[in-house]
Amino acid sequence: MRVAMRVAYDGTNYCGWQIQPNGLTIEEVLNTTLSELLGEKIVVSGASRTDTGVHSLGNIAVFDTNHRMPADKIAYALNQRLPEDISIQESWEAPEGWHPRFVKSRKTYEYRILNRRMPLPTERLYTYHYHYPLDVDKMNAAIQDLVGEHDFTSFASVKSQVNSFTRTIYEASVTRDGDIIVIRVTGNGFLYNMVRIIAGTLIEIGNDRRPVTSIREALEAKNRSAAGPTAPAEGLTMISWTAEENLLTH
Amino acid sequence: MRVAMRVAYDGTNYCGWQIQPNGLTIEEVLNTTLSELLGEKIVVSGASRTDTGVHSLGNIAVFDTNHRMPADKIAYALNQRLPEDISIQESWEAPEGWHPRFVKSRKTYEYRILNRRMPLPTERLYTYHYHYPLDVDKMNAAIQDLVGEHDFTSFASVKSQVNSFTRTIYEASVTRDGDIIVIRVTGNGFLYNMVRIIAGTLIEIGNDRRPVTSIREALEAKNRSAAGPTAPAEGLTMISWTAEENLLTH
Repeated sequence: MRVAMRVAYDGTNYCGWQIQPNGLTIEEVLNTTLSELLGEKIVVSGASRTDTGVHSLGNIAVFDTNHRMPADKIAYALNQRLPEDISIQESWEAPEGWHPRFVKSRKTYEYRILNRRMPLPTERLYTYHYHYPLDVDKMNAAIQDLVGEHDFTSFASVKSQVNSFTRTIYEASVTRDGDIIVIRVTGNGFLYNMVRIIAGTLIEIGNDRRPVTSIREALEAKNRSAAGPTAPAEGLTMISWTAEENLLTH
Repeated sequence: MRVAMRVAYDGTNYCGWQIQPNGLTIEEVLNTTLSELLGEKIVVSGASRTDTGVHSLGNIAVFDTNHRMPADKIAYALNQRLPEDISIQESWEAPEGWHPRFVKSRKTYEYRILNRRMPLPTERLYTYHYHYPLDVDKMNAAIQDLVGEHDFTSFASVKSQVNSFTRTIYEASVTRDGDIIVIRVTGNGFLYNMVRIIAGTLIEIGNDRRPVTSIREALEAKNRSAAGPTAPAEGLTMISWTAEENLLTH
């Protein structure tokens, strides 16, 4: 049976999603805990390989099992064994071989900035503290240039190994709620470090160190050096993954 | 020189504010760090002795020093040495002998509940996860009975050692923002565990295990057993302390 799960986590204490030799990852904890729960070796695969320190409200993981536990009961049973910083939100039976990476989908990410003079301990794990003034109207105007289909070479880590840098952004906004600025982007896929580079560029725009046109100029340049720095991981949260087929039925 | 500071902290990893033999406290970290910074033995005293695991955006601490550093520079200098889960928001010179406990003041506390089926890792440190339905309208109606001057014996830990259980609540509300329910109370003072007992009682009201009149009935009973359980510490945050004299000038 193929099982899919929606997985939320606080990335603070993990070396990202994907298994690696030098630190604990979300994938490794899920493999170990599922293997204990189901009594067989389980290997999960994820929709997004989030980086060290990045959070998620709903990454998607899939795996195969021979266990007879109903797929929708696995979320609750697994949560009893998982550490508090990882929580399965929902589990369901998926078609054989189904994988979120092979499905047309929309992902939404948020990058949160704490924009005030002094740091705030209760926000430190889930925001990037930036204490210079930021003009949210300029940032929101600039981010609109991302909407549509573009070559995002300038907004990808030079370490990216992909065939195509073309992605489509459906919606993008920058809003302020008190001291918290939220950069929100929805697209059909994101390159390595893409949202963090978008955030780093927008912060320079908001602080008047770059013109409001520089997102458009960076897209045209197709060169990583044309965009701003990569903003720190702690501000980034993967909000949701939705299959296009589900969007159509709404 | 008397110095006052507004102190924010994430209480997760501390045994509360007040120094005690069995664990690290906010007060102890402030004493140690201030003594290092100013090169003399510093002893702080706080407005609220918050409990283990309780957070604050603005507790007030005072201390005396012979150091010549301008009082308003101490906040920034101290933050360079403090751990990330404690942050001074502001520091200023106060009159000789001034102490927030001897000043007529208003304190505001918030108790935050994550009200959804599954736990959410990125909210776990700052909310209490309660997964049964809660009727916020009933909770908000019930909490209004707290407003005014009352004997709060029923809403104080039996361990309270005070001369009077009379306190005045100026404002109280229960609101919902998505999955988060916020209980907010402003008063001239709070007894030991008072806001957590208010929260525990309101949760039972919101879940229909107590009538909406039970806050009023508990006040009249003047007996701890007439109120609900003490809700867990992690949901509680001290939001602000304001001197009445400052309120009058606004």
